[in-house]
Amino acid sequence: MGNLVYHRQFTVEWGHCDPAGIVFNSRFFEFFDWSAWLLFEKALGVRPSELGSAYGIVGIPLVDAQARFIKPAKFNDVADIASEVIEFRRSSFEVRHRISIDGELAVEGSETRVWAAQDPGNPVKLKGIPIPADVIERFRA
Amino acid sequence: MGNLVYHRQFTVEWGHCDPAGIVFNSRFFEFFDWSAWLLFEKALGVRPSELGSAYGIVGIPLVDAQARFIKPAKFNDVADIASEVIEFRRSSFEVRHRISIDGELAVEGSETRVWAAQDPGNPVKLKGIPIPADVIERFRA
Amino acid sequence: MGNLVYHRQFTVEWGHCDPAGIVFNSRFFEFFDWSAWLLFEKALGVRPSELGSAYGIVGIPLVDAQARFIKPAKFNDVADIASEVIEFRRSSFEVRHRISIDGELAVEGSETRVWAAQDPGNPVKLKGIPIPADVIERFRA
Amino acid sequence: MGNLVYHRQFTVEWGHCDPAGIVFNSRFFEFFDWSAWLLFEKALGVRPSELGSAYGIVGIPLVDAQARFIKPAKFNDVADIASEVIEFRRSSFEVRHRISIDGELAVEGSETRVWAAQDPGNPVKLKGIPIPADVIERFRA
Repeated sequence: MGNLVYHRQFTVEWGHCDPAGIVFNSRFFEFFDWSAWLLFEKALGVRPSELGSAYGIVGIPLVDAQARFIKPAKFNDVADIASEVIEFRRSSFEVRHRISIDGELAVEGSETRVWAAQDPGNPVKLKGIPIPADVIERFRA
Repeated sequence: MGNLVYHRQFTVEWGHCDPAGIVFNSRFFEFFDWSAWLLFEKALGVRPSELGSAYGIVGIPLVDAQARFIKPAKFNDVADIASEVIEFRRSSFEVRHRISIDGELAVEGSETRVWAAQDPGNPVKLKGIPIPADVIERFRA
Repeated sequence: MGNLVYHRQFTVEWGHCDPAGIVFNSRFFEFFDWSAWLLFEKALGVRPSELGSAYGIVGIPLVDAQARFIKPAKFNDVADIASEVIEFRRSSFEVRHRISIDGELAVEGSETRVWAAQDPGNPVKLKGIPIPADVIERFRA
Repeated sequence: MGNLVYHRQFTVEWGHCDPAGIVFNSRFFEFFDWSAWLLFEKALGVRPSELGSAYGIVGIPLVDAQARFIKPAKFNDVADIASEVIEFRRSSFEVRHRISIDGELAVEGSETRVWAAQDPGNPVKLKGIPIPADVIERFRA
């Protein structure tokens, strides 16, 4: 058994690209974020906008993001992004994203996110709470 | 007496530009939006984040935006944006933005915004309410 | 016979939305821009990145854009955008975009674009050139 | 002697923020990118748009970016970003960015960039070339 992987394809838009004709780096973090939500939708069967209420959390805020740019993604390239949770810890987890173009890895990224609730001692703050075992189970394929 | 005009200068960033080497159109609407907030801060002496609570409104949502692109704005150009309310109506108003580069008009835009409160008959909706006369007065210079 | 209409559906992403929980206005102009390219691809059978070389033009730069925001688009809403050229002039044309959510019109926009070549008298400038009749013909359905 | 540090201040805009009312993660990578260009302008006395021609390079493309999100940045927060090159290698270097709000570190990021020229064996590719010693010297304060 392995990790559930969420795939989607998209075409690189004119507005994604910079004067070098390639995707501007910040855009990849938009692509990662949205794929993280869609991976959760696929695994849990809950729409992104209902994830919080379904699980008694505030959300899955990002605490760390990174990307390695291996090959440029150009205007009109068709990209495939594959996303999976590669590690669950007590109250956080790591999502890995791989973007391929023409079958070659172009960008590899990772996000560390927290399974977060309101902090009862300080309602304007968030704190990580334990990720339920049945949630983790749903990310196995 | 004329309209209060809010000016700011900024430099066109690499990430603002598209493969043609010029500012991608959607960025201008970001520039307009932020200048509208800053014009209100200048006129009313209230920070953008406190505008709602200071005036008993939910905000100043946009109902119409437009831009005319006269000359391209290129990477590293120094832009001057001048913003003013050119018309107050009962519960809405029109903000005009003019972006100049090297003293020449490059982009002219306008936004129609509403002075909006919660709709008491339907709390998930907003409705325009009359703009106080003393608010309007503050936009005269 | 009517205008060729290009439709696509997309889901409103977390990163498209502002603190009011609705799509930030500049994002709609990104949606319009990409649909304009895709409408041309559908009509002419030419990929966006090859449009220039296929027709001896530099591109279809935007000279005017506007949007009317009728109903908010919220995180996770499924939007349908329908785009068509509603008028061809000698060397420019107007694209209309209508974004609907749950069958109701949420945003209506328009773009004026130019069929543009290098200006032979000044190679750093663009100028509109006549739109070929067979191009116009392809936008009829 | 230490590293030259480039500081700038900016206010968090409405359009930078997501439905949680805090800066959406991809925006931080825009902030980093622009500060990297400005750090080079300060160190070398060359405008970003002229960096390539001044040094016989194509640019300083990004090969790796990361950010650690320590405290949220909210609408209207005044942020200070401090940027410095913390390591020069033969043909690449690492830029560190620290964003503070009210004197507390909110986000820490780093970018690895390449001092890149056209690859003579393959003109559509870039390759790193040695960073001149006098360039490195200018990043000492």
